[in-house]
Amino acid sequence: MADPSERSFSDPNEEIMSATHRALQKHGYADLTIKRIAEEYGKSTAAIHYYYDTKEELLAAFLDYLLERFVASVRDVETTDPEERLELLLDRLLANPEEHRDLSVAMLEMRSQAPHNETFDERFRQNDEYLRYMLKAVINHGIDEGTFEDVDADHVTRALMTIVDGARTRAVVLDETEALEAARRTADEYVDAILMGNRDARE
Amino acid sequence: MADPSERSFSDPNEEIMSATHRALQKHGYADLTIKRIAEEYGKSTAAIHYYYDTKEELLAAFLDYLLERFVASVRDVETTDPEERLELLLDRLLANPEEHRDLSVAMLEMRSQAPHNETFDERFRQNDEYLRYMLKAVINHGIDEGTFEDVDADHVTRALMTIVDGARTRAVVLDETEALEAARRTADEYVDAILMGNRDARE
Repeated sequence: MADPSERSFSDPNEEIMSATHRALQKHGYADLTIKRIAEEYGKSTAAIHYYYDTKEELLAAFLDYLLERFVASVRDVETTDPEERLELLLDRLLANPEEHRDLSVAMLEMRSQAPHNETFDERFRQNDEYLRYMLKAVINHGIDEGTFEDVDADHVTRALMTIVDGARTRAVVLDETEALEAARRTADEYVDAILMGNRDARE
Repeated sequence: MADPSERSFSDPNEEIMSATHRALQKHGYADLTIKRIAEEYGKSTAAIHYYYDTKEELLAAFLDYLLERFVASVRDVETTDPEERLELLLDRLLANPEEHRDLSVAMLEMRSQAPHNETFDERFRQNDEYLRYMLKAVINHGIDEGTFEDVDADHVTRALMTIVDGARTRAVVLDETEALEAARRTADEYVDAILMGNRDARE
């Protein structure tokens, strides 16, 4: 596979992306239309179609936009300490912005449509690959430095993403914000036991 | 909360449940209709409405039916050894029946609808509570017997369900059967480290 760090994000129209964000939060995924996005954008639907041919194309760009914002938010972090960087990545992946509840609901709906929608399918796979690439780089860095045990970095990365995705699903389906907190604690326990080889991880 | 083990399942019509299962696998959740279920049932839609007023009511019964089948499949297991019982529960929760791919896809669609659908919301919460009750009983049994460390059983139960739900979501969204295998390994590592206090869980 190509190095995901080489990936270039398409240049999204920031205003349309923000409008899409607001429209998704207001109307949900099922009732999202270009017309409703245009209302938030404050321009005509034609103005949106100038940039994006279809709603699907626009939503694919929106998924990229969310990933890009996430990547930017962790890229600026100053620490290079692998343990701290991993903690920070997990903090961000399992953040609980209460105001984003409606977006999380819409995201799970889009994810559930991946088997029926090739564009979403491709996007979710690529974005998952990108997040795993980031996690794995930090883990490998820690292994090289001797901070972390000499683990199977690929598996540990998948294990952490499983915990992240489980938390996101549970937070939506069970409407439990504590799902994210429980998952954050689980991720810590897992990191302590497997990466740090901490014998008292359970304390 | 009431003791979930006291829960009595409604008595479902087995033939209609099997027909619903087949119709879901064939048509998916979005295109499921009472008419299509009736076709699989081999009777009229009126014959289905005799038992279930609405499609929603039928699907709620179907979710109960799936849980009940799961519960029955683990209830008959002869071992009372907590470690073996926990392994078995995790095996079943993370089983990978290839032929059930379409059902898993439909289940994630239903789960993503929970925030918009009170009947689903209630069912998914209750069913999650029931699964956690089963896991927690085994964990507490192991703690009492001294097989497991004296952990926070409630948290460990949520941690394991987070891994299970993460795997199920990833298996559908990323179309990866390896998601279930990776999660099974992660659950084992977690159990070894946290419940067994195994210092070499990572080996």
